[in-house]
Amino acid sequence: MNAPHQPMPSAGVLSRFAAIVGAKHAITNPVEQHSYLVEMRGLYHGRTPMVLRPGSVAEVAQILTLACESGTPIVPQGGNTGLVGAQVPHEGGAEIVLSLTRLNRIREVDPSSSTMTCEAGVVLQKAQDAAAAVDRLFPLSLGAEGSCTIGGNLSTNAGGTGALAYGIARDLALGLEVVLADGRVWNGLNKLKKDNTGYDLKNLFIGAEGTLGVITAAVLKLFPRPRALETAFVGISSPDAAVALLNLAEERAGGTVTSFELMPRLGIDFVLQHASGTRDPLAGAHPWYVLIELSSPATSGLHAIMEELLSAALERGVIEDAVLAESLDQAKAFRHLRHMLAEVQSREGGSIKHDVSVPVPRVPEFVAEASRAAERLVPGCRPLPFGHLGDGNVHFNVSQPIGADTAQFLARWEEMNAVVHAIVVKFAGSISAEHGIGQLKRALLPAVKDPVALDLMRTLKRTLDPKNILNPGKVL
Amino acid sequence: MNAPHQPMPSAGVLSRFAAIVGAKHAITNPVEQHSYLVEMRGLYHGRTPMVLRPGSVAEVAQILTLACESGTPIVPQGGNTGLVGAQVPHEGGAEIVLSLTRLNRIREVDPSSSTMTCEAGVVLQKAQDAAAAVDRLFPLSLGAEGSCTIGGNLSTNAGGTGALAYGIARDLALGLEVVLADGRVWNGLNKLKKDNTGYDLKNLFIGAEGTLGVITAAVLKLFPRPRALETAFVGISSPDAAVALLNLAEERAGGTVTSFELMPRLGIDFVLQHASGTRDPLAGAHPWYVLIELSSPATSGLHAIMEELLSAALERGVIEDAVLAESLDQAKAFRHLRHMLAEVQSREGGSIKHDVSVPVPRVPEFVAEASRAAERLVPGCRPLPFGHLGDGNVHFNVSQPIGADTAQFLARWEEMNAVVHAIVVKFAGSISAEHGIGQLKRALLPAVKDPVALDLMRTLKRTLDPKNILNPGKVL
Repeated sequence: MNAPHQPMPSAGVLSRFAAIVGAKHAITNPVEQHSYLVEMRGLYHGRTPMVLRPGSVAEVAQILTLACESGTPIVPQGGNTGLVGAQVPHEGGAEIVLSLTRLNRIREVDPSSSTMTCEAGVVLQKAQDAAAAVDRLFPLSLGAEGSCTIGGNLSTNAGGTGALAYGIARDLALGLEVVLADGRVWNGLNKLKKDNTGYDLKNLFIGAEGTLGVITAAVLKLFPRPRALETAFVGISSPDAAVALLNLAEERAGGTVTSFELMPRLGIDFVLQHASGTRDPLAGAHPWYVLIELSSPATSGLHAIMEELLSAALERGVIEDAVLAESLDQAKAFRHLRHMLAEVQSREGGSIKHDVSVPVPRVPEFVAEASRAAERLVPGCRPLPFGHLGDGNVHFNVSQPIGADTAQFLARWEEMNAVVHAIVVKFAGSISAEHGIGQLKRALLPAVKDPVALDLMRTLKRTLDPKNILNPGKVL
Repeated sequence: MNAPHQPMPSAGVLSRFAAIVGAKHAITNPVEQHSYLVEMRGLYHGRTPMVLRPGSVAEVAQILTLACESGTPIVPQGGNTGLVGAQVPHEGGAEIVLSLTRLNRIREVDPSSSTMTCEAGVVLQKAQDAAAAVDRLFPLSLGAEGSCTIGGNLSTNAGGTGALAYGIARDLALGLEVVLADGRVWNGLNKLKKDNTGYDLKNLFIGAEGTLGVITAAVLKLFPRPRALETAFVGISSPDAAVALLNLAEERAGGTVTSFELMPRLGIDFVLQHASGTRDPLAGAHPWYVLIELSSPATSGLHAIMEELLSAALERGVIEDAVLAESLDQAKAFRHLRHMLAEVQSREGGSIKHDVSVPVPRVPEFVAEASRAAERLVPGCRPLPFGHLGDGNVHFNVSQPIGADTAQFLARWEEMNAVVHAIVVKFAGSISAEHGIGQLKRALLPAVKDPVALDLMRTLKRTLDPKNILNPGKVL
């Protein structure tokens, strides 16, 4: 992706930026800048004249005002855990990095209204902990939760493992505070569940990857903490059977189904082989597996619901076998099998990854067709599709053939992407279910997006950021 | 409210509009136009040169193309049940009424993906029935469901009685099809739960009351049908106790609480006096009442959850008394008391109404302060606040003093509104929780809305409808 052609800010402008936050928080030393310029997968290495670390919303507003006036491009950054390169500047780019990590106050935890008001730089795990401290649940949960931030979660509309029951990041924000491209601050920090006084502005900024405004704070929804938990590990014959089981679970236990994860036998084999202390919960082998978790704030009744569900599924031939966790330790062991899936793939060589979604009932067809296509492209490769079946979200990862050259296999990344994404589009799916567009998928967008939608997006970008200073060259 | 100053379309332009839909569906006869020009409360009487009844999305697109080219203003209309005058043209206005009622096809019901694709003119009850026919629930439910339409529900972001558990209209749409101000059609009819490929466009059009685009179809979410239902009628001492009970219910039965309605003793008195065949479910009198409904797709366990909840509430002194419905008939009788509340007020003379919301924990303070202020303004008036406590949504209605002159009391409508809305604003609430802005509350908006939000709204309106042809003079 080309860097946008913008002039480097002058020394005079840079010193004005530095004066806003103080010299200590205006980083120009390349060594100190390093961690803001590379991302975790090492796909992008950016450059910047200055990293700014404002300590207040007022400072963010002053920075944007000066950026607008001077035409200086800005890259907002949270915990720098994004997977599509949205949060790092371009190579040789003139963008200033605006790190929100010092805006890390939890302004309020209000259990009575089941809300929490967090600044953009609050680390997700801190937000979860603050909710737990008042006996509430903040359900957003994902791998990077120890370092990703609320601002980044909202700007990328993060998904994660709680989405089936509690929704994606977009669903978890009641109100926002946003600094606009011209430095004005929109205070939309409301706690209301119902407010029909005008257009929905909040959802414009959520998922916009910092290209329409800078989210500085949010009112987040809290939920009652689950008191009952039932976890089952289920052996099934096919993804079709998994969809049937999901439908049955939603009928019998809708609202309490908080996890529904699909895994292929190959994935379980990888885990059992490479992850120490793991064991197969079921006696026989099955082609596919589902991890179901039911949870509820009610203390009684859930065990019976899970037993009824599994009995009905066995009777109808929907499942082959199942085991219900008898203790919290056993439940943890079941979840561990699922969590290790992503990690153990690296022990089997290179893996080409896709974060896609299709309508839930089409997941089986998609998995079958994409697997065949991958095997046609690279004979002997090993498709390992797994993920959040209840959201139609498949991590369609493909492991290299046994004994093949890893570099040679990974060199076919884009070719493999093209083949898989073409099938996603055929099934009316999305080529980015959770991670966003950023730099990584920007060039792919015109091919998969409705042209009117793309034009509306460009119109909104020009309207809200006429000088193209907010994260230029990302998304659009 | 002043009509926008736009010239009447010429006879030539009108005949081109008529040609698009055919003479039969281009109504110019005032008698046939009548039902499109008045609304149910009789607050607004509009005029129009022509009512157009297109039969397809292509015809809607042609109408908007011609409207854009000729600068003709358009008022989109569904079932004409809106309560703020958004759906009727201005008096002496030059606007053409675009009735969407012939776009009444249910394009698809897809139980496997739990979605349904409805055109804008599908009546809400028909949509509910189509979902029920495949053993699913479409949970949007409101008084006008026999005549309001899906397009109107989405354009006004309807709330209704199912919002606590299932969300408002905005939460129930996965995808939209929208005709833009220039006649282009945006096809955003996706069924995906997760799609992070760009800006959220859907929520711009939902709740915009037809001022940013014309919604022609939507993909709606379906839910499992409840199999178990528990209904309780509870006597309590105060709204504070009701909030405590709500918190307890969400802790103990979160996810299954599908109704939580607050009612004052005065309301129950009105119902028992004026609605035949009603009886007080509880032996003693209580200052306030709550109707709780739990429902669940699971067949077992719910009765125990409700019993546990009520026992805990009694033990802690949160409630004074409660009765659990022993049959479906009894549950229906409990609900009937709540449903009759709005109707029986007319039997006690004039009633000044407010559809407002405040953060849930502030409902008690709001009710107390607004009641005192109303009584100060009109001594002897009888505040009757009731509604969806779980959503913070209070229908703060005020009945006239006993024996007072009804017309004289109703003449103070705007004065009473001003007093109540000032208290709503003080509590960070919304002066329109469910009904929207339309013509009725347009003049109030600048006083209650964040100025940056209002400016963003104006900017979006100018961008998406530069010729101001979509429902001009509504909302903004």
